[in-house]
Amino acid sequence: MTEPLKKVLGAQVRDLRRARRLSQEGLAEELGVSTRYLAGIERGERNLTLDSVDALAEQLGVEARSLIVRR
Amino acid sequence: MTEPLKKVLGAQVRDLRRARRLSQEGLAEELGVSTRYLAGIERGERNLTLDSVDALAEQLGVEARSLIVRR
Repeated sequence: MTEPLKKVLGAQVRDLRRARRLSQEGLAEELGVSTRYLAGIERGERNLTLDSVDALAEQLGVEARSLIVRR
Repeated sequence: MTEPLKKVLGAQVRDLRRARRLSQEGLAEELGVSTRYLAGIERGERNLTLDSVDALAEQLGVEARSLIVRR
């Protein structure tokens, strides 16, 4: 079974956060979300809508597809 | 502004349906959804969740990312 998109999203957000040397608290604050919410995204548990992925990508300053396609 | 993911999804589903020489009614029936619902997806109006994109891809027999990344 191919990897669920939300798992790919979680891994990509985590990699991006670490590359920017941010803690979950730090990135959550930047995004204006709770640390708990961000942790859920990174664990691949949050079933975001496509619009939410677009918004998250815009906030992170990356292409939306880069969040849901493994490099 | 990069193209919203749901617009990309709509175009990819439409291309795939046409490649398979199916009408919207025909594909909707295969998927077990209403033609109205499928038409909304193809117009890029339906804000699907990542799990729904995974399920749609599985039903179509394609990789989920192929539905949300423009060829």
